[in-house]
Amino acid sequence: MEQNDTTTIEMSAMEIHKVAPPPHKTTLQKLKTRLKETFFPDDPLRQFKGQPLKKKLILGAQYVFPILEWGPNYSLKLLKSDIVSGLTIASLAIPQGISYAKLANLPPIVGLYSSFVPPLVYAVLGSSRDLAVGPVSIASLVLGSMLREVVSPTKDPILFLQLAFSSTFFAGLFQASLGFLRLGFIIDFLSKATLIGFMAGAAIIVSLQQLKSLLGITNFTKQMGIIPVLSSVFHRTNEWSWQTILMGFCFLVFLLLTRHISIRKPKLFWISAGAPLLSVIISTLLVFALKAQKHGISVIGELQKGLNPVSWNMLHLHGSYLVLVIKTGIVTGILSLTEGIAVGRTFAALKNYQVDGNKEMIAIGLMNIVGSSTSCYVTTVNHNAGSKTAVSNIVMAVTIMVTLLFLMPLFKYTPNVILGAIIVTAVIGLIDISAAYQIWKIDKFDFIVLLCAFFGVIFISVQNGLAIAVGISIFKVLLQITRPKTVLLGNIPGTRIYRNLDHYKEALSVPGFLILSIEAPINFANTTYLKERISRWMEEYESGETKKQSELRYVVLDLSAVSAIDTSGISLFKDLRMVLEKKSLELVLVNPIGEVLEKLQRADDTKDMMGPDCLFLTVGEAVASLSTTIKYQIPTHV
Amino acid sequence: MEQNDTTTIEMSAMEIHKVAPPPHKTTLQKLKTRLKETFFPDDPLRQFKGQPLKKKLILGAQYVFPILEWGPNYSLKLLKSDIVSGLTIASLAIPQGISYAKLANLPPIVGLYSSFVPPLVYAVLGSSRDLAVGPVSIASLVLGSMLREVVSPTKDPILFLQLAFSSTFFAGLFQASLGFLRLGFIIDFLSKATLIGFMAGAAIIVSLQQLKSLLGITNFTKQMGIIPVLSSVFHRTNEWSWQTILMGFCFLVFLLLTRHISIRKPKLFWISAGAPLLSVIISTLLVFALKAQKHGISVIGELQKGLNPVSWNMLHLHGSYLVLVIKTGIVTGILSLTEGIAVGRTFAALKNYQVDGNKEMIAIGLMNIVGSSTSCYVTTVNHNAGSKTAVSNIVMAVTIMVTLLFLMPLFKYTPNVILGAIIVTAVIGLIDISAAYQIWKIDKFDFIVLLCAFFGVIFISVQNGLAIAVGISIFKVLLQITRPKTVLLGNIPGTRIYRNLDHYKEALSVPGFLILSIEAPINFANTTYLKERISRWMEEYESGETKKQSELRYVVLDLSAVSAIDTSGISLFKDLRMVLEKKSLELVLVNPIGEVLEKLQRADDTKDMMGPDCLFLTVGEAVASLSTTIKYQIPTHV
Repeated sequence: MEQNDTTTIEMSAMEIHKVAPPPHKTTLQKLKTRLKETFFPDDPLRQFKGQPLKKKLILGAQYVFPILEWGPNYSLKLLKSDIVSGLTIASLAIPQGISYAKLANLPPIVGLYSSFVPPLVYAVLGSSRDLAVGPVSIASLVLGSMLREVVSPTKDPILFLQLAFSSTFFAGLFQASLGFLRLGFIIDFLSKATLIGFMAGAAIIVSLQQLKSLLGITNFTKQMGIIPVLSSVFHRTNEWSWQTILMGFCFLVFLLLTRHISIRKPKLFWISAGAPLLSVIISTLLVFALKAQKHGISVIGELQKGLNPVSWNMLHLHGSYLVLVIKTGIVTGILSLTEGIAVGRTFAALKNYQVDGNKEMIAIGLMNIVGSSTSCYVTTVNHNAGSKTAVSNIVMAVTIMVTLLFLMPLFKYTPNVILGAIIVTAVIGLIDISAAYQIWKIDKFDFIVLLCAFFGVIFISVQNGLAIAVGISIFKVLLQITRPKTVLLGNIPGTRIYRNLDHYKEALSVPGFLILSIEAPINFANTTYLKERISRWMEEYESGETKKQSELRYVVLDLSAVSAIDTSGISLFKDLRMVLEKKSLELVLVNPIGEVLEKLQRADDTKDMMGPDCLFLTVGEAVASLSTTIKYQIPTHV
Repeated sequence: MEQNDTTTIEMSAMEIHKVAPPPHKTTLQKLKTRLKETFFPDDPLRQFKGQPLKKKLILGAQYVFPILEWGPNYSLKLLKSDIVSGLTIASLAIPQGISYAKLANLPPIVGLYSSFVPPLVYAVLGSSRDLAVGPVSIASLVLGSMLREVVSPTKDPILFLQLAFSSTFFAGLFQASLGFLRLGFIIDFLSKATLIGFMAGAAIIVSLQQLKSLLGITNFTKQMGIIPVLSSVFHRTNEWSWQTILMGFCFLVFLLLTRHISIRKPKLFWISAGAPLLSVIISTLLVFALKAQKHGISVIGELQKGLNPVSWNMLHLHGSYLVLVIKTGIVTGILSLTEGIAVGRTFAALKNYQVDGNKEMIAIGLMNIVGSSTSCYVTTVNHNAGSKTAVSNIVMAVTIMVTLLFLMPLFKYTPNVILGAIIVTAVIGLIDISAAYQIWKIDKFDFIVLLCAFFGVIFISVQNGLAIAVGISIFKVLLQITRPKTVLLGNIPGTRIYRNLDHYKEALSVPGFLILSIEAPINFANTTYLKERISRWMEEYESGETKKQSELRYVVLDLSAVSAIDTSGISLFKDLRMVLEKKSLELVLVNPIGEVLEKLQRADDTKDMMGPDCLFLTVGEAVASLSTTIKYQIPTHV
C-alpha cells in the first residue's frame, strides 16, 4: 500500500488541484448550523431522533426527571451503599451547614435548612450521581460580604435574611435561565488559572475571618480585607481568650490530621468526613461538662426546632434593594455553578456517563428557586465520595430532617471556636499550590492571571478580585486576536511541505516568494495590524539575503488557519492587492476555507482576485506552478 | 526544475519528517518578542539602527517634529498650491466651524477659535500631509449631548463652556496617552460596520436637530431622540416660519447640488468647498438688505472680535464634574481619532508614504491639550483635497486669524437657517448606503452590527448606540473563540493532501482514522466545548459508513491552525488521552506550532504524549505511517 502511495504522488506531482467553491448553502441554513454549533454543540436531543411517539414521551420524561431513568433499576445493593454514603455526608453537612451559614452572616439554622430541601429537589432533577448538595464556603462568603456592604446583619437581621433569600432566588433564576437559554458556556470564561487564584485568595480571607472565633475576640472588624482583619487581631490582644485558643488549636490539629490521612489514603475518606461531627460532639460535651461557656468560650446558644418555614413572602422582588440582590444573585450563582458543573463533568468523565451542563444548570437553578421559598440560601453540588445514586442525597436530607426536628437543643453548648476550626479545615483544601506551580511551569501569562485573582481578592475585595482576573483573561484573548501571528514559511528540502522558517532550521526560503501564514480569524480588530505587518515582511525581504537571489515577485498568503473573516478582513485583501500592484507584485492566496472563499468571491466584483493564478490549494502547488516565471541570479534550491 | 521537484518528492515519499522542537528561548526573550509585536508592530525606530550619533539626533528631531523633515525641501511651487488649498479649506472651515460649535451648544466663535490654534500645532507635529484640522460634526454632537445631560447650556453657559474645554483637555490627554503607550490599536475595535451604522445614525440625529433652524421653531425640545424631536416639530407647526423655510430650502438645494457636482467630478472639489461661504455671504447680504431679521428669520447676532483668549483657568481638573468630563473626553477622543487616523492612513497608502498611527495620536492629543487652554473644543484631522504639505493648515489658520481680528461684525446678520443647511449638507455625506449594501452582501452578521449601531443611535442615544455596537462586535469575536471550528478532514485521492470533507466533495475519509482540524487557539473559553465536540465526532464515526470498513483506531488532531494554547488547553489533551485510552484509541497530534509544542512538552511529565507515534509533521505522514496497523474489512482506498 505504501508502494501505491508513492506512485500516486509521483503521478500527481505536476497536477495542480483546484480550490473548489464550497457547496452552496442559503443564509438560513448557515445561520441554523451556526446556532446549533453555538447553543447545542452536544446535540442533547439526538436520542429522540427516529423513535416512536410513545418512546419519545418516555425519553422526554426521563430527560426532565432523570430519577425516572435510574429509579426502575434501583436495587437493594445500591441502597445499602447509598445509606452509608448519605449518613457520611450528613455528618459532614450538619457542622458545615452551621459553619457556612455563620460565614454568610446568617443564623446557623439556615445552613441546616439549606441541607434539607435542596438535596431533595436535586435528587429528582439532577443527572449527576456522585454529588452532594449543600451550601459551600465561597458562595457563602461572597453572599455575606456583598450584602453586608449595604445592610448590617447585626443591626437589621430580618432585612439581611430577606435579602439573602432574595439573592438566592435570583441566583437560581439566573442559573436556570443560563441553562434554559443554552448559555452555559458563560461559566467557561472563568479559566482554571483564575479559579485557582481566586479560591486560594478566598480561602485565606475566610480563614482570617475565623480568627475571630479561634482567638475568642468579641469586637472584631466588619471588613474582609487582610489589613483591617490583621490590625483588628493585633490591636485586640487583650480580648484573646486562652481557653478558646487552646480548644481551637487542639481541634484544628485533630481535623487537619484526619484530612491529611484521608488525602493519603482515599479509601479512608470517612475519617475526614466524620471528624467534624465528632469534634462538634466532643467539644459540646466538654463545654457542657466544664461549664466552659462561663470561662470565656462562646457558644452557639438556643436554636429553634422544626422544619424549614416558608419564606416566599420574604423575597424582595422590587424596591430599593433589587439591584443589590440581583447582583449578589448573579455573582454567587456563577460561582456556585462553576464549582458544581466542573465537579459533575469530572465525575461523569471518570465513570463514563454524560452530563449535560446546561441541563445541570436548570436543575441547580430550580433547586435554588425552591430553596429561596423555603428558608434556604444559595446551595450547589459538591463532590461526594461513595455515593452511587441520588438516593444518598435523600438519605442525607432525611438525616438532616431528623436533626432539625429533634436534635437542635443539643447544639446549645457547641462552641463557636469549633465551627471556626471546621471552616478553616474545609477551605484549606481550596489552596492548590501544586496546580499553581504547574501553571507557572506551562504558561507564565496564566500565572499572572492567577496572581491577579489571588492578590485582588486578598487586598481589594472578593468580587473585584474575581472581576479583575476575568477581565485580564478576556483581555489576553482579545490581544491574541488583535495581534495574530504571521509566520514566514520555508520549504523543507526534498518535500512540498512548507513550515515556519524560524522553528524548522532546515527549511529554506524560496527566492522570489514571500510566503506567509496568517494564524487567526481576520476581522476588524486586526486588519490594520496585518496590513502593517505584511508590509514590514516585504521590507524585510527587500533588505534580506534572499533578495540577492531573486527580486520579490509573489506574496503568498497561506489562509489555512484563517477560520473566519468579516467585511473589514475582506478589505485587507483589496488594499493589499492595490499596494502590491503599485510595486508590480502579485498576491497569491492559498487554501482559504469555505466561508472565507465565499466572502472573497462575493466581494470580488471584477473577478481578478480569484483567478487561477492567484488561488491554490497548497503552498507547494502555488510555488511549483508560479516559480517557472522567476528569473534567478543564483539558482540554488527550490 | 519541475522534473527535479517530482523526483525529490518520490524519494521522500517513504520518509517521515520529525516534528522538531522550536529553538530554545528564555521567558524574557519570549516576553520581549511578544511585547514588541504587541506594541511596536511597525518597528518605528528601525531607521535609527546603525546610524552615527549626529544622524541619530537629526532623525530624532525630525521624528518628533515632522516639519523638520519636509521643511528644508519646501519650494515656491509647493507654496502656491498650499495657498490655494489653504484658502479653500478656510472658506469651508469658517461656516462649518460656526455651525459645528452651535451643534455642540457652544458659542459660534468657539468654532472659529478651534480652527485657528489646533491647525498651527498640527502643522508642526503631524506627519500627514493631506489633512485639514478643525472641529467635526460627530464629536461636536456627542460632546454637546453628553454635557447637556448634566448641565444646561442656556441656563449656565459659562459652566457648560468650562466643561467643554475640560472634556477637550481630557480627550487630548487620552489621545496622547494612547499614542504614547502604543495602545492605538484600541480604536481598531470600532469596526467598519459599527462606524457606518453609527455615522448614519448620528447624521440623522444631527439633521433632525437642524429642523429647529430650518423651520424657524423657537421652542424646540432639548432631547436628541428621533421621537421627541419629531413630536416637537409637529406639535409646533404654529411656530413654523415660511420665510425661514423658503430661504433654508433654496440654500439647501444649492448646497446639495454643489456637493453632487463635486462628487461626480472630483476635480471640481472647490465648488462644494466654496459653496458654504458663498451661501453665508449671500444670505447675510439678503437679510441685511431685506431687514429679514424683523420678519421671523433668526440671525447669529453680535460676535466678539479678537483672537483666542486663554482658557486654562477654566479647566475642571477636580471636583464634582470630573467623572463627566473624563467620560466625555474619552468618548469624543476616541471618535475623533477613529475618523482622523483612518483618513490619514488611507491617504498615506494612496500617496505611498508611512503614517505611524500612534505618533499621529500623540500629535492630535497635544493639539487638543493646547486647544483646551486656548478656548478651543475637540478638533481632529480630516480629508483636505489639494493640499501638498502641512503649510496649507498654516495658511488656513492665518485666514481664520484675519477673520477673527477684522471680519467678525460681518456675521451679525448671518441667518441661523443657513448654518442648519450647511450642517445637513455636511453630515449627509456620512450616510454611506453603498458601503452598507456591500456589507449586507458579504457578511450578514456584520450587517446586524451595523443595524444595531444605527437604531441604537437613533432610538436610544448616541453614546449608548455606539456602546451596544462595540459590545456586539466584541461578543461576536468572543463567540468565535468559544465555539471554534472543528473540521473533519479527508484525503484528496492521489495526493497526500487532506482537506475539509464537507467542502471538497472528492475528498475521502480514511477508515480507522478520525482526522480533525482545530481552527482556533485553544484556551479556557473553549476547552469544554472542544472536549464535547470531539467526543461527538467520535460517536458520529461509530454510527457512520466508514465504521463498516474499519473500527476507529486513531484520532488525529491537526493543530496547524492552533495559534496559541493556555493551561486549560493543555488539560484538554490530557483529558482526551484519558478518555481515548479507555476506548483503546490513540491520540495523534499533527504539526503543533512552536509555542504549543513547547507547552505540551512541559506539561507531559511521563513523556508518553509526545512519542514518535503520536506526533507527526503532516496528516499525510501520520496516516501513511500508522495505517499499516489497521485491518480493513473492505480495503478500498487510502
